Amino acid sequence: MNHPAPLETPTRILLGPGPSDVAPSVLRALAAPTIGHLDPAFLEVMDQVCAMLREVFGTENRLTIPMSGTGSAGMETCLVNLLEPGDRILVAINGVFGTRMAEVARRLGAQVTEAHVEWGRTFRAEDLRSAAEGEYAVVAAVHAETSTGALQDLAPLREVASEVGALLLVDCVTSLGGYRLALDEWGVDAAYSGTQKCLSCPPGLAPISFSSRACDRLAARKQPVQSWYLDLSMIAEYWFADGGGGRAYHHTAPINMLFGLHEALRLVLEEGLEERAARHARNAAALVAGLEAMGLELRVSPSERLAPLTAVAIPDGVDDGKVRRHLLERYGMEIGGGLGPMQGNTWRIGLMGAGSTRRNVTLCLAALREALEAQEWAVGGDPLAAAAAAYAP
Amino acid sequence: MNHPAPLETPTRILLGPGPSDVAPSVLRALAAPTIGHLDPAFLEVMDQVCAMLREVFGTENRLTIPMSGTGSAGMETCLVNLLEPGDRILVAINGVFGTRMAEVARRLGAQVTEAHVEWGRTFRAEDLRSAAEGEYAVVAAVHAETSTGALQDLAPLREVASEVGALLLVDCVTSLGGYRLALDEWGVDAAYSGTQKCLSCPPGLAPISFSSRACDRLAARKQPVQSWYLDLSMIAEYWFADGGGGRAYHHTAPINMLFGLHEALRLVLEEGLEERAARHARNAAALVAGLEAMGLELRVSPSERLAPLTAVAIPDGVDDGKVRRHLLERYGMEIGGGLGPMQGNTWRIGLMGAGSTRRNVTLCLAALREALEAQEWAVGGDPLAAAAAAYAP
Repeated sequence: MNHPAPLETPTRILLGPGPSDVAPSVLRALAAPTIGHLDPAFLEVMDQVCAMLREVFGTENRLTIPMSGTGSAGMETCLVNLLEPGDRILVAINGVFGTRMAEVARRLGAQVTEAHVEWGRTFRAEDLRSAAEGEYAVVAAVHAETSTGALQDLAPLREVASEVGALLLVDCVTSLGGYRLALDEWGVDAAYSGTQKCLSCPPGLAPISFSSRACDRLAARKQPVQSWYLDLSMIAEYWFADGGGGRAYHHTAPINMLFGLHEALRLVLEEGLEERAARHARNAAALVAGLEAMGLELRVSPSERLAPLTAVAIPDGVDDGKVRRHLLERYGMEIGGGLGPMQGNTWRIGLMGAGSTRRNVTLCLAALREALEAQEWAVGGDPLAAAAAAYAP
Repeated sequence: MNHPAPLETPTRILLGPGPSDVAPSVLRALAAPTIGHLDPAFLEVMDQVCAMLREVFGTENRLTIPMSGTGSAGMETCLVNLLEPGDRILVAINGVFGTRMAEVARRLGAQVTEAHVEWGRTFRAEDLRSAAEGEYAVVAAVHAETSTGALQDLAPLREVASEVGALLLVDCVTSLGGYRLALDEWGVDAAYSGTQKCLSCPPGLAPISFSSRACDRLAARKQPVQSWYLDLSMIAEYWFADGGGGRAYHHTAPINMLFGLHEALRLVLEEGLEERAARHARNAAALVAGLEAMGLELRVSPSERLAPLTAVAIPDGVDDGKVRRHLLERYGMEIGGGLGPMQGNTWRIGLMGAGSTRRNVTLCLAALREALEAQEWAVGGDPLAAAAAAYAP
């Protein structure tokens, strides 16, 4: 076979819904020589990763680990461990990822009740309560809907979950590392995330966290977890030697990815959780100011809007594909298209982790204005002046 | 929180059952800047990875892709896609990984018939036939049992699979890249592997391949695949745009791991499949000559013995842990312990991928002799002379 040449990959600016730009020191950590998954030096890496993850999730949950798959594997891990066939789950759906949770739960044989609000909106207690009937094993919701850019207040969901006797499961894929999370304070029983959003590590790992109540549920299961690969009771024997006989091999951990996550988490804590959340908020506010100055409309109202991801309505007469190609080809800049009902009519601009910078805000606004003008769309005011004003003290 | 210092990982020589040593160019490829999973440049990487994987598997199967998890996720992918609850599977068990296949199949609701031979031995047609009763959906076996070091001849298994009307599913975790595989010629319908053995890429991806018969089975399913994350019908829409509307997002692919796999596969093809298999065989033969010269006993007979992994009986009176610590602490060298009934009485020495070198053979034999002498075990002949003789033309 004629084998291909070594890869020559382009250098992008990743301002889509993830993956986000990765810090150089994280890329270097990925490339450290591989060591064994039972090497004493690696066991120390694992312990440090768990400790840092707890800090970033805002929890003292012991069972806080990165699963060996992408964010969607984290979702499946939570559902397949917490639910048995026939169990009831109430899912709050306001975008792609709530929809996906319901689908994953149905596949494992759970009885699913769906609660819906419009995409781009979030749930009040009443929206969820009115869909509920009787008791549930789990109430599930998305903290930061990556498909729409909406941030869910979790307090009302915790309230309803308690009313229906349920554990609260939360998708934190786009909030982990971009907000100050407080799983324990918020009463979240299980959470999952991905590494490629506000942690700015490449995709491939799914941090999860289970409260002691969630662990009790796991221990009380009548049937084994349907997925061997995602069975937390066995995986905990590897991470915490819960079997009693030292760390037990389950599957070969993705060593180098964990080196990368170690460095990514270290950078998060070095910056400080409050400082990092404030940076995400500041850059998002400047982006929003610039977009609105041009006359673009946002999909989510200010009170429900995510900082790491801004959803923008594509103006009538503007070609989605042409604008994104303009940004990619002239600037090596990626922004995201819409999903589901938002496909073709929405852009998703991510300012996540290492990508949440003033430089990216300014360049994105300049490039987007240029692309819109190339489509002969009448740009309103000057986005760069508006963004600069938003940064002014 | 006091965040830890940046990682300072040791440099090991990985001569265990995997992960194996990773070539420097693969580590560099891992560290290339992350790009988006729908970036045109990444779609090209995906196409090249698929084409190279087909070559290394020895197949023209279109559905030949790396799954976003480690080797065990590859196992689960094959089983959960090929089987529906109630389907019958006949599993050939002669080690940990056959045992695991049976367990994964039971968890998804399949009816499992187990066929057993002693660990370290392999199956003749008759061994499997005598366990079979009636028809099966799948016959499953392990090509290269990483837990025991035994290489299974697949021809008799294909014969029995055809007799019972079954697809043939094969674990190629430790054979892919270390042997010249020929899935199509051998009539294998589904195969899975991992990247951290003879491909010498870090762990984290699971190459799989499905024949057209296996794809027909998938298309004819009555129920959706229990695992959303591992559902090949949806994943194929991302890899091959099977949905008709361009590559459809399923989950965010592990971009940087795929950069690494691209380079690892490139190195395999650059070396040549025959040449690479011959190198694995040559170095294993020299290792065996050295081990036997010292008076050590091997777990597997010559006709059934794997080249990438050699299982050695730990002599009476020799302390497993002390010997392995000696190798690790004095030489930074990892060899593997035994699993299951072989725990504490067997070492597993891997010479896989970039780690299958004359340098490693010689150093391993020298270090092992030293460690055995430190335990006052009476070493027989000179292992280095025996290995050198095995290399002589």
